[in-house]
Amino acid sequence: MRTSQLTTPALLVDAAGLEANLDTMAQALPGTRLRPHVKAHKCTALAVHQAARGNTAFTCATAAEMEGMARAGLGEDLLLANEVADATRLGALARSGARVTVAVDSEETIAAAVRAGVPEVLIDVNVGLPRCGCLPEDAGRLAERARGSGLAVRGVMGYEGHIVGLEDRSTRTAMLEESMAQLVRAHDLVGGDVISAGGTGTYDLNTWATEIQAGSYALMDTAYAKLGLPFAQALTVLSTVISVSDTWTVADCGLKALAMDHGNPSVADAEVWFCSDEHLTFAPQAPLRVGDRIRVLPAHVDPTVAYHEHLHVVDGDEVVDRWDVDLRGW
Amino acid sequence: MRTSQLTTPALLVDAAGLEANLDTMAQALPGTRLRPHVKAHKCTALAVHQAARGNTAFTCATAAEMEGMARAGLGEDLLLANEVADATRLGALARSGARVTVAVDSEETIAAAVRAGVPEVLIDVNVGLPRCGCLPEDAGRLAERARGSGLAVRGVMGYEGHIVGLEDRSTRTAMLEESMAQLVRAHDLVGGDVISAGGTGTYDLNTWATEIQAGSYALMDTAYAKLGLPFAQALTVLSTVISVSDTWTVADCGLKALAMDHGNPSVADAEVWFCSDEHLTFAPQAPLRVGDRIRVLPAHVDPTVAYHEHLHVVDGDEVVDRWDVDLRGW
Repeated sequence: MRTSQLTTPALLVDAAGLEANLDTMAQALPGTRLRPHVKAHKCTALAVHQAARGNTAFTCATAAEMEGMARAGLGEDLLLANEVADATRLGALARSGARVTVAVDSEETIAAAVRAGVPEVLIDVNVGLPRCGCLPEDAGRLAERARGSGLAVRGVMGYEGHIVGLEDRSTRTAMLEESMAQLVRAHDLVGGDVISAGGTGTYDLNTWATEIQAGSYALMDTAYAKLGLPFAQALTVLSTVISVSDTWTVADCGLKALAMDHGNPSVADAEVWFCSDEHLTFAPQAPLRVGDRIRVLPAHVDPTVAYHEHLHVVDGDEVVDRWDVDLRGW
Repeated sequence: MRTSQLTTPALLVDAAGLEANLDTMAQALPGTRLRPHVKAHKCTALAVHQAARGNTAFTCATAAEMEGMARAGLGEDLLLANEVADATRLGALARSGARVTVAVDSEETIAAAVRAGVPEVLIDVNVGLPRCGCLPEDAGRLAERARGSGLAVRGVMGYEGHIVGLEDRSTRTAMLEESMAQLVRAHDLVGGDVISAGGTGTYDLNTWATEIQAGSYALMDTAYAKLGLPFAQALTVLSTVISVSDTWTVADCGLKALAMDHGNPSVADAEVWFCSDEHLTFAPQAPLRVGDRIRVLPAHVDPTVAYHEHLHVVDGDEVVDRWDVDLRGW
């Protein structure tokens, strides 16, 4: 099948770009030094390619991602790097046959893990991003509470989400050192083998973590592309030109095909004006015609993929595979 | 079932709010004076409630919406208010058994309609929003071309998308007059019974149009709420508090549950800080606890609904129905 036969908008994954990204990362962070985050692609078929390179332990953000990975036989070592208060849902996970570890940062989330029969946890530590995670000085107490409740505490996690996207590498490095000092301090109080942290923007800088939770490196987006990392933008949204005026051109992909939290998408050799629900208004340098196809580069990969049912793997204009985005929803 | 039993994040529709919104609009614009736009809710079960009030002709933005409405038996008079270059897809629509009218704004889209066997079209006219639509002075030529190719031209459409969201009513009124003057000029050249235009923000102002394409009024969002319209915010995202610190609180809905193109969502009695993929960081006035449920008000209804599989219809904390968001995708 050719890309010209696809209904648009459609997510395309450049096969060679993806393979190169997975290879580069697996060489930099072999085996369980990387714990690929599936939230960026929500696709077990893509995760199979990560596991085939030896990166067999995975990070998830939702119970649905954990369940899907377990069902797909990718449950060797799954970390739910997020707090879940729903013991019923966690209970189903605990019985999934996968090795399940969940993040906890409070007495309530520890209690939910205990009620659910989840065997293993990480103490989630706040390392500067105003989101989940306990205070570093509170990590020891929570670990004690967890162990006292019968849970195995594998160590700590702490996501430096306020740092991974900073464009200047030296700023990223300096802030990372400060952030990880807090995680190491917490780990001293908690013990265990695991210090889980990191993302695509710090994959080669975070030497404090024992494992890196990078996800975006596989497909990439224009936000991460600004960092000069050795990963190609493998993901685009194929779109059809549907209207042409003297000064602007309209293609059929918009707010329901592209996440906007990181701003407008990009189009090569064109200035993007704005997106509407089902439209992209842009000004190309060379005129386009109704029916022409363009490839749009999303600003943020994760919530863009979450809008789509399929990833179409392409070699140039040849569609070589179609993967379900099977980890959507909650 | 109670809302406390729902997996979060989950879309909730307040039954009373929805009913009131549909009633108010059906009274203001009875029968085919309204052509409800399904792109705002993407849900045939909701469309059934609109049709039951006499608003039986519908507007769609995608071929998938048209197909779904036809399958659901809601095909009495469906307008695809968007340009489609894909004659194969249009062909399937033309054979769906529904009354199908499509927007055209170029020789290419007219040719696609002809190849597809679509019987009826509207000439789409640009009325100020830099998106689809021909120049008003070109509408007559296109109508002639369409009729010469065997198509029935029902009239014109022109969406004043640059006006519908303006907060000041007098500005909205003044700009609308100018915008609709162009559409009326085009209609003079085209002929036909239909002048299709309008949205929720101009539903009671646009007296030039013969039918109004409003959609957001059914569920509403915080952007439209600023206009002081007689429609309630019936849509919320139910979310669970998963982490609490001294200064902020985190709930489990984020960029994959809420569209961000109109900015952050809102939470009553709280200041919203930011959203991450699966998190909302906010500061409530009164402390919340892990496990508490909150209702988050989306900034933009259309691309928020497109992230979800279901609408849960609620009466207070009682879930009275679950509707599929069955018009997603393309």
